[in-house]
Amino acid sequence: MSMTSTNADVVDIARRLIACPSVTPARGEVFAVLEAMLVPLGFTVDRFVVGEAPDGPVENLLAWRTTGAGPHFAFAGHLDVVPPGNGWTSDPFTPELRGDLLYGRGAVDMKGSIAAFVAALGGISEELPGTISLIITGDEEGPAVYGTLALMDRMAAHGLRPDLCLVGEPTSSQRLGDVIKIGRRGSVNMWIRVDGAQGHVAYPHLADNPIPRLVRILAAIDALVLDKGNDWFQPSNIEITDLDVGNPATNVIPAAANARISIRFNDLHSGAELIERISAIAAAEGGIVTAKISGEPFLTEPGALSDLVAGAIREVTGVEAELSTTGGTSDARFLSRLCAVVEFGLNNATMHKLDEAVAVQDLQDLTRIYELVVRRALGG
Amino acid sequence: MSMTSTNADVVDIARRLIACPSVTPARGEVFAVLEAMLVPLGFTVDRFVVGEAPDGPVENLLAWRTTGAGPHFAFAGHLDVVPPGNGWTSDPFTPELRGDLLYGRGAVDMKGSIAAFVAALGGISEELPGTISLIITGDEEGPAVYGTLALMDRMAAHGLRPDLCLVGEPTSSQRLGDVIKIGRRGSVNMWIRVDGAQGHVAYPHLADNPIPRLVRILAAIDALVLDKGNDWFQPSNIEITDLDVGNPATNVIPAAANARISIRFNDLHSGAELIERISAIAAAEGGIVTAKISGEPFLTEPGALSDLVAGAIREVTGVEAELSTTGGTSDARFLSRLCAVVEFGLNNATMHKLDEAVAVQDLQDLTRIYELVVRRALGG
Ligand SMILES: [Zn+2]
Ligand SMILES: [Zn+2]
Repeated sequence: MSMTSTNADVVDIARRLIACPSVTPARGEVFAVLEAMLVPLGFTVDRFVVGEAPDGPVENLLAWRTTGAGPHFAFAGHLDVVPPGNGWTSDPFTPELRGDLLYGRGAVDMKGSIAAFVAALGGISEELPGTISLIITGDEEGPAVYGTLALMDRMAAHGLRPDLCLVGEPTSSQRLGDVIKIGRRGSVNMWIRVDGAQGHVAYPHLADNPIPRLVRILAAIDALVLDKGNDWFQPSNIEITDLDVGNPATNVIPAAANARISIRFNDLHSGAELIERISAIAAAEGGIVTAKISGEPFLTEPGALSDLVAGAIREVTGVEAELSTTGGTSDARFLSRLCAVVEFGLNNATMHKLDEAVAVQDLQDLTRIYELVVRRALGG
Repeated sequence: MSMTSTNADVVDIARRLIACPSVTPARGEVFAVLEAMLVPLGFTVDRFVVGEAPDGPVENLLAWRTTGAGPHFAFAGHLDVVPPGNGWTSDPFTPELRGDLLYGRGAVDMKGSIAAFVAALGGISEELPGTISLIITGDEEGPAVYGTLALMDRMAAHGLRPDLCLVGEPTSSQRLGDVIKIGRRGSVNMWIRVDGAQGHVAYPHLADNPIPRLVRILAAIDALVLDKGNDWFQPSNIEITDLDVGNPATNVIPAAANARISIRFNDLHSGAELIERISAIAAAEGGIVTAKISGEPFLTEPGALSDLVAGAIREVTGVEAELSTTGGTSDARFLSRLCAVVEFGLNNATMHKLDEAVAVQDLQDLTRIYELVVRRALGG
């Protein structure tokens, strides 16, 4: 059996990757298995470990193969998985085929997609002009501080910069091919604190109750309409996710009051602008804001890349893909700084759940779609 | 030494009461000591224990002496004390005279006042027409469920009903005699709960965030002006005292949100009316209110009783008393259902604090004031 002979090996490749436990942050065996499959295909492989506990150390793998001058197409993804949890029908790290489904943690998110990357590349025996790379991290499901960003630095050090990138996240919703993500909203959390002066409810003039001021801040935030959305994004949305005073005494006016908000925002905003805006609202009532940006929004305008992927999907499955920007964040938010990026992968129904599973047919179809995408990206 | 010979014994009586530890709920020794002082003065004493743990059992003492037909004047108060806490200069239950001050838990709140009741009655050797009673509980500093209310039932059973009542709470503020309380505000606490549906912040249309609804409820409550006060009461006041959601996950919309408010209200309102009003505001946003009324307001309109007490204060100390309705609740809220009630007692500066202390001069002056009050109440 040769990795380069046929696409039929995608299930076998997926099995081998699932069989390596790789709860985030991941390193070691699962990367060695992937490297061993890429080297015979002519890829140069650079594996490196970065970071320290608790969020690291993390392993990353950069692989590339250049065949003359031409465009640079990159597959991106992750080999780490979320913890399996208890209650699986079969062992989550022992891949098991039952009926038409292959079970195991990472089957759809996203060792199955990475298996399809490898199988697709194995199916391309002729030499297409250009560069093909794989940008694979062990730190996507965690804080993502030592993963794709470190890989981007590593690429720059090697003088590599993709022109087109496909992230293999499980974007399909009802059936394989129905959704391509062309962007993602940004995400920022903010903590609002209002300080007052503690006192007794019978003598409010000697105290300064921070709660009415926090209520006014939150009412102003709740009344904000950030935007009405645009062609490719739904309206930005603010949720107040927590209130905390922690005052057990019914006759005491508390000294401080806290709230937390979460904003998912489209490309009409930046995290910094939203922090400034909420801070100004809070400051009007003496509130102080601390914030953490989880990700800025990105959008790859519909065009060559999305047409290319949608065309390959149509050809293999007959499905007309919807272009979407919904859902959470992904590493595409980082890669979009380099080039046009879309996300397309397996059906996400069992992602992060017990008994995560992928249909064998989907693995085979995805391999054929990815192979078409690579060929056409390189002008084949 | 005889209890009836002179007022000078007030310090000795106070010492004997302070020497009996009686942290709320109180019973036993401290009541036996008081009974032993009242019986020689011709009082009939009825001691009884009511209630169960944790708020009981509680001892109460009812004493009365009738000398022909005439008005019924009652002294009311409590022998329980708040826990002493750590850090006293001398033992809180070993009364100690240092300089002009007598130290000990209860010195001003309110064993000192009860000592002055007894000493004042000891100074009245002639027979005045009417009834004098003492209504003394061991459950004022706690939940007050087994105390003065039980004493009022007991009085009714004995066919006793006062015409005038003086509660010996420490009302004096800067110097003895400067404040008489002629009423108290009512107090009610309410808990507001808003239920929603939990979900992920990225998919708010699948969730129902209860926090904006709670914020709207609280904004409406904060905007309420209950009243502007009246001749004898300051404006009623609402404080929001707690907010609680308890959601640690930044990307989760919580299922429920809670707040607590405390209202101190004057005699333009009742607890029930306020609960109904807040419940209606909450219901408009799907909120549910639970409430606990700590006390209804009461007012003894300025008149014969307050004139009588103010006159005695003026005569003994030269101080012009202010008539006030400020501060927390007291058992006068119960006794006001029976007759005209005022509260007057020692300086409250060290009440409930470490190193609680009373000036010996104040004990002696208070005894003379109380004696004048009793004499004049009984037409002497
Ligand atoms: Zn993933
Ligand atoms: Zn008291």
